[in-house]
Amino acid sequence: MINIILCGGSGTRLWPLSRTMLPKQFVRLFNNRSLFQDTVLRNQPVCSHSMIVSNKEQYFLAVDQLSQIHSHNAQFLLEPVGRNTAPAIALACMALDADDLVLVTTSDHLVKNQAAYEAAVLEAKALAEQGNLVTFGIKPTYPEVGFGYIEANGHEVLSFKEKPDVKTAQSYIDQGNYYWNSGMFCFKAGVFLDELKHYAPEMHQACLNAMPKDGFKLEIRIELDTMNAIPEDSIDYAVMEKSRKVKVVPCDMGWSDLGSFDALFDEVKQPGLENAVLSRLDDSPEPICIDSSNNLIVARERQIALVDVEDLLVIDTSDAILISKKGSSQKVKAVVAQIKKQAPELADIHRLAFRPWGTYEVLQDSEQYKVKRIVVKPGSKLSLQKHFHRNEHWIVVSGTATVTVDQDVFLVRPNESTYIQMGQLHRLENQGKIDLVMIEVQVGEYTGEDDIVRVDDIYGR
Amino acid sequence: MINIILCGGSGTRLWPLSRTMLPKQFVRLFNNRSLFQDTVLRNQPVCSHSMIVSNKEQYFLAVDQLSQIHSHNAQFLLEPVGRNTAPAIALACMALDADDLVLVTTSDHLVKNQAAYEAAVLEAKALAEQGNLVTFGIKPTYPEVGFGYIEANGHEVLSFKEKPDVKTAQSYIDQGNYYWNSGMFCFKAGVFLDELKHYAPEMHQACLNAMPKDGFKLEIRIELDTMNAIPEDSIDYAVMEKSRKVKVVPCDMGWSDLGSFDALFDEVKQPGLENAVLSRLDDSPEPICIDSSNNLIVARERQIALVDVEDLLVIDTSDAILISKKGSSQKVKAVVAQIKKQAPELADIHRLAFRPWGTYEVLQDSEQYKVKRIVVKPGSKLSLQKHFHRNEHWIVVSGTATVTVDQDVFLVRPNESTYIQMGQLHRLENQGKIDLVMIEVQVGEYTGEDDIVRVDDIYGR
Repeated sequence: MINIILCGGSGTRLWPLSRTMLPKQFVRLFNNRSLFQDTVLRNQPVCSHSMIVSNKEQYFLAVDQLSQIHSHNAQFLLEPVGRNTAPAIALACMALDADDLVLVTTSDHLVKNQAAYEAAVLEAKALAEQGNLVTFGIKPTYPEVGFGYIEANGHEVLSFKEKPDVKTAQSYIDQGNYYWNSGMFCFKAGVFLDELKHYAPEMHQACLNAMPKDGFKLEIRIELDTMNAIPEDSIDYAVMEKSRKVKVVPCDMGWSDLGSFDALFDEVKQPGLENAVLSRLDDSPEPICIDSSNNLIVARERQIALVDVEDLLVIDTSDAILISKKGSSQKVKAVVAQIKKQAPELADIHRLAFRPWGTYEVLQDSEQYKVKRIVVKPGSKLSLQKHFHRNEHWIVVSGTATVTVDQDVFLVRPNESTYIQMGQLHRLENQGKIDLVMIEVQVGEYTGEDDIVRVDDIYGR
Repeated sequence: MINIILCGGSGTRLWPLSRTMLPKQFVRLFNNRSLFQDTVLRNQPVCSHSMIVSNKEQYFLAVDQLSQIHSHNAQFLLEPVGRNTAPAIALACMALDADDLVLVTTSDHLVKNQAAYEAAVLEAKALAEQGNLVTFGIKPTYPEVGFGYIEANGHEVLSFKEKPDVKTAQSYIDQGNYYWNSGMFCFKAGVFLDELKHYAPEMHQACLNAMPKDGFKLEIRIELDTMNAIPEDSIDYAVMEKSRKVKVVPCDMGWSDLGSFDALFDEVKQPGLENAVLSRLDDSPEPICIDSSNNLIVARERQIALVDVEDLLVIDTSDAILISKKGSSQKVKAVVAQIKKQAPELADIHRLAFRPWGTYEVLQDSEQYKVKRIVVKPGSKLSLQKHFHRNEHWIVVSGTATVTVDQDVFLVRPNESTYIQMGQLHRLENQGKIDLVMIEVQVGEYTGEDDIVRVDDIYGR
């Protein structure tokens, strides 16, 4: 079975933890792992490999996170723009054989009961092998109004229900045979594509047009204009709510979509502890809480101190902090909308930015200079590049840099430095076995990221 | 008239804005000025010069802040350790002539009505010239329980009252002739010393013993052992509550001791605005407030976003954030007590540290290296020093450095760099007319501040 992992997301619901360039599934939350990494690990026992549907901005981030968990059997489908779930799944299925069994999952949900999960997947697999389109129905634990519901009788789907009001949601729970629509599916690739062709023939044809014709590849890149030509729709609307081959596997596996900080609170909260604290494992200072309880505290680098407060969501990051009343985390969207007007870079990117070759972190940015910490992964190299407005001073603090400046190639070792003059063609590379860590001081009249001319780049940028 | 400015303070009540090394009076609050600077400016119309009672840690900070407001007629009395207000004022008076009129003020209070202030000072001055010890009684605006009260009849003091409970405080307000004891005084130096000699002869003698005998100096430094020999007491207990020469000047001048974030809220709050926001003038991002009101927000570098919260005090700094319920800011003491156990450097110092020669800011600190931004004021130089455990890379981004390394002296210009090897004797100096701004990257097995051997230092460290 092949695990199709959908990796979309705008990074708004868990802002400031998530950003456009680091959506929810890539944020390290529990045990210093991301939900994306947890998804891959969760499916390893039931799937032979994964097909990750992502975009090119997040491709290197996904590759990086896969390598951190030593997962090396993933194929990528890179969408230039998202067209909702039906086209994403269709394109992925078109890259497979018609008889291949696929398990479609999101990348940003939490599943706490692995045994129940695997049992549900095996149950779904058996149904899928019989030619069914199988959806997973999560036993609801409270009257959530943000999800659709599935009315079921055993494995039979009686109806799909739109997001209800609280009263209706409560009646669903009381009746006992209604389930949350989880966004997970299991079927044979060919069965799904046949049903799509039947119920959404235009989309099916547009997806066929968009698929590259050059056979099997580890990275399948869809072109922008053919992708734009595909109608936008969800798998539920396009196929599941119409097909007669749909079955449901009811399950109860400790599932959460972590769609808000309130949902995160429920997962972090532990009985007996006054506050729910989510820290990074390594270096987050322990929050100080005086007469304060029932708060969610997400701590990163800074010391957080609470006095006499209750029911707050306190989400700290290096450049932004959110303080919200518990129960109001849906309004984070309104914050992000205002951020996009007022300081758009805070909606897009963290101070720690991920690049194909590693990471950089802006330590200080001023009119005359910029200070960065640069980490280049072993075997990686930056583009061959030059700048028109800045000089660069590089000081290696760990690892060894192979530096190209015009015609010269030389090594810079720990505690050594070098200097790249404005206009000089240069390249930074780590040919070693450990991370290269470097402090870069840029000096010049303009230090924006867009002052870069790339002459050669192994990442095709 | 000479303005004796008392500059003590432990930096706990406005933590994390204030720290041991940057007590409340030196924090920039309003109009990018500190309360200390405001105090000096407020008294310039009524006093010829000032005598600043401080300690050697804060001496350079005070000198720096004076120079920023172009105040150049201050004398300093440096206490190695605080012994409360009576000895501080006595030592300052001993450095003056007996006939000198003095106005004793704190350095960390706010006065909003300058005209009323000057009128009160002139009224006090007239009484002081007649040989009285004059105190200032602030007309109370609410039943504060944290201050002492003065019962008055015109200029006559009927009694001093200890901090009352709320009910008693309210009865004081209802009676109309009770005033807050402001900690400000006006008298002739000799009159005060005579009264001190009469009512606290031991303290008087101990202060005489502690005063250096070498005549008038701009900086009077008291020795630790003679200072320790002085009994500790407040001017109120030691003299004012006993002397028969005490008068009071009742006044109403928009006074606040800013003794807590709740008091700060009252001063920052503006009618018609939903939240009280105190930003640095230059580069603080504007807070985003969704359905939130009646909060105090002190913003520095980071973006702050509030959702559905009311009556909070949100105090953000580069390395710590305090979130307290309004009305509970007295509990900040409990936070500081815990900070002192858990992360004592956060109680002591900001990431931006003040030195006699300028400032440094730690941009990043890790096991193998430390990155600092160093600013050296024009005409200043660091000590001639060496380190046993670290090498230093210096990159000048603005201004020109005069660098000494062993026998060599050379200039390092903007966008130039130099390297100081472990063990090399070196010195950094700014002989120019503008600030020298430099990025320092320290590389070594240990980068603690205490790895320094000072061979020569113009600041006597």
